[in-house]
Amino acid sequence: MKLYEQLANSIAQSIHEGVLSRGDKLPSVRQTCKSRNVSSSTVFRAYYLLEARGLISAHERSGYFVTAGSTTGSPSAPDPAFSVNPECKHVDVSELVFEVLESIRARNVVPLGSAFPSPLLFPCNKLAQAMASAVKTMDRWHSVDNLSPGDLNLRRQIALRYMIDGLHIQTDEIVVTNGALEALNLCLMAVTRPGDTVLIESPTFYGALQSIERIGLKAIEIPSHPKDGIDLEAMEKALQLHKPKACWLMTNFQNPSGSLLSDEKKKALVELLCRYQVPLIEDDVYGELYFGNKRPAPAKAFDTEGLVMHCSSFSKCLAPGYRIGWVATGQFSKAIERLKLTTTLSASVPAQVALAKYLQKGGYDKHLRNLRHSLLLNQINFIKAIERYFPTGTRLTPPQGGYFLWVKLPDGVNALAVHRMAQ
Amino acid sequence: MKLYEQLANSIAQSIHEGVLSRGDKLPSVRQTCKSRNVSSSTVFRAYYLLEARGLISAHERSGYFVTAGSTTGSPSAPDPAFSVNPECKHVDVSELVFEVLESIRARNVVPLGSAFPSPLLFPCNKLAQAMASAVKTMDRWHSVDNLSPGDLNLRRQIALRYMIDGLHIQTDEIVVTNGALEALNLCLMAVTRPGDTVLIESPTFYGALQSIERIGLKAIEIPSHPKDGIDLEAMEKALQLHKPKACWLMTNFQNPSGSLLSDEKKKALVELLCRYQVPLIEDDVYGELYFGNKRPAPAKAFDTEGLVMHCSSFSKCLAPGYRIGWVATGQFSKAIERLKLTTTLSASVPAQVALAKYLQKGGYDKHLRNLRHSLLLNQINFIKAIERYFPTGTRLTPPQGGYFLWVKLPDGVNALAVHRMAQ
Repeated sequence: MKLYEQLANSIAQSIHEGVLSRGDKLPSVRQTCKSRNVSSSTVFRAYYLLEARGLISAHERSGYFVTAGSTTGSPSAPDPAFSVNPECKHVDVSELVFEVLESIRARNVVPLGSAFPSPLLFPCNKLAQAMASAVKTMDRWHSVDNLSPGDLNLRRQIALRYMIDGLHIQTDEIVVTNGALEALNLCLMAVTRPGDTVLIESPTFYGALQSIERIGLKAIEIPSHPKDGIDLEAMEKALQLHKPKACWLMTNFQNPSGSLLSDEKKKALVELLCRYQVPLIEDDVYGELYFGNKRPAPAKAFDTEGLVMHCSSFSKCLAPGYRIGWVATGQFSKAIERLKLTTTLSASVPAQVALAKYLQKGGYDKHLRNLRHSLLLNQINFIKAIERYFPTGTRLTPPQGGYFLWVKLPDGVNALAVHRMAQ
Repeated sequence: MKLYEQLANSIAQSIHEGVLSRGDKLPSVRQTCKSRNVSSSTVFRAYYLLEARGLISAHERSGYFVTAGSTTGSPSAPDPAFSVNPECKHVDVSELVFEVLESIRARNVVPLGSAFPSPLLFPCNKLAQAMASAVKTMDRWHSVDNLSPGDLNLRRQIALRYMIDGLHIQTDEIVVTNGALEALNLCLMAVTRPGDTVLIESPTFYGALQSIERIGLKAIEIPSHPKDGIDLEAMEKALQLHKPKACWLMTNFQNPSGSLLSDEKKKALVELLCRYQVPLIEDDVYGELYFGNKRPAPAKAFDTEGLVMHCSSFSKCLAPGYRIGWVATGQFSKAIERLKLTTTLSASVPAQVALAKYLQKGGYDKHLRNLRHSLLLNQINFIKAIERYFPTGTRLTPPQGGYFLWVKLPDGVNALAVHRMAQ
């Protein structure tokens, strides 16, 4: 662990133990340099990290104050829970999603409209080397045998990463897909039929709504808090009332709210769904992008019955545009593999072989560390800018990882109008 | 045109004009060498070509005889038309398709079970160069801009090829997909809803049945002849009776029968479907693989209303495993583009950029000429082997291009049992 992370953790502990209380001013950077015998840059980075975790907050010209994530009324006050009416609904996604997606093509505006990171944050040269080597040395027969479920070396590398995170996923359980979006769609198709109902969180990733609409399913929205995610009590009521065929949600640094389910909550979620024998489609594309000390576990880690389909990809962490994702299929491997075969046959073979080579060579974890750091700094800069320029009454909860910062504008401000003016 | 093609065409003309009649023995190779002043290899290749076109046939130790495609009873007699009961059916594809697909992974048997060509027939080195150059020089922002409808350069190259074939397809009309299979599936989803009926040919590409089953559609089978394809009279009756929402078929060198619709028939097909305002999903992945003098037109060439969705790919002609296909969408571009966005987002960007580079550099047509020649020789060799080893009563119609040779075994022979014994 780096020095600034150690320092941040030590201060965080003081806050949790009540040594530092809400509203307390932190020692100045200069004081802390002296008392801890560290450089000012280490102190700044530690404070930024604590700020990103929502534990402290900077007040211009007067220093850092403990917020412990619960001040209200100030510009970056944490967001309250979302409330929704958990009724069964047919889904009809408006033109809005496509309008916002289209806007991200303009390079002269910051693309806040969708979850595309700056392409400059990825190891393009190393990937190019891996790809050049892949296509030059690739066994020609791979164009036949690397069809669904996917390139064996890549599936082994993915299984290895699960193993490092303490999950025992068999290579055979992994189906390679065209990005996580296809993985999620295949899972949904595997366990539902038109007319069925599906549990989703509110707010949810717009892609889930589009899939539900396309397949002709009905959605039941379960309220979710931007800090710790879905409301399990509301979910249990919905399970009893609506007998859904699946639950689709994002456990780590959710799109769009940034919420993170704790390990305890993930365990409770999986147990609850198992009790009702409802499969979980877990979208975990941001799990590697934590700002804390370790990767948060997926809900899949608590699955003893193979009811969790864990979907992820390299699009958010390593290789956007390569369109390589996967699903750890649990008990649904045969259905998912066949759906993949009959819809798009297989993922692009050169991309699969190239990523397997890149992972085999090593360097992914170093890249991830840099990426996390850049994303954390991004978040800090955005929070600072929001504090400075956004009106009083703006609310946000800084997430502990990922790409998202859910900002609630004060009453009376039309977010769509702001979006259109910003283009 | 090559010398052996000229010679073959000249002999073919003699047959069509009645100068040579059915049963006539052709001049020996030696005689023809002398009379035409060409090498024996030219004569052999010309005779092979004529044999492949079903115009002549070799009888061991006695030379070549004119068959004009109409002898019966001999081992390679042409196949009669398929007859089906054109009733509306729910589709339930058996385990058989998956069993046969699985069998192609074994490298120690000739993979007759599915339409995968030998990977040795493709320009792997040139593709590897294009890919290495693509990933090294690729604009990093392409990972964002090259989402659906696809890489602009690639779509331009595809539009250019249409133009060379005399079709005016706008770049904007083209949506790049993960192979033709995804293109076909997106088209089907764009124009149908669960419960709708769709016209297909019988026998049909198994992928069409799988898609119809997955989406929950009903299929109406229209009989198709292995020589000239679908029966338009039967189709008109089905159009009147069942009011289908789409027609899905393969116009050139169909999988599995090898049938080819003539230009006149394609025109009549499009006119018929336009009269009933039924969209045509045209699967044309084998069109480039003609053994004759020019690429057979797609039905899309006769479409004046944008009712034809023309699907193709590079998987059968250039780059298997890259999973790059496309659809010329006609009037359905918005729906198809959006379905692509919400199901798999986009095709692999490096593969798109690499193929655009390969096409831009030139050499594709030369590769295609070699590929067609290899496929023709393959067909000739298979026909020879079938004539030698298969029992009397075996029937086939040599197609004029593509990968397929529809062989009808004599009554009493169980093809599936033969397949299983051959593994």
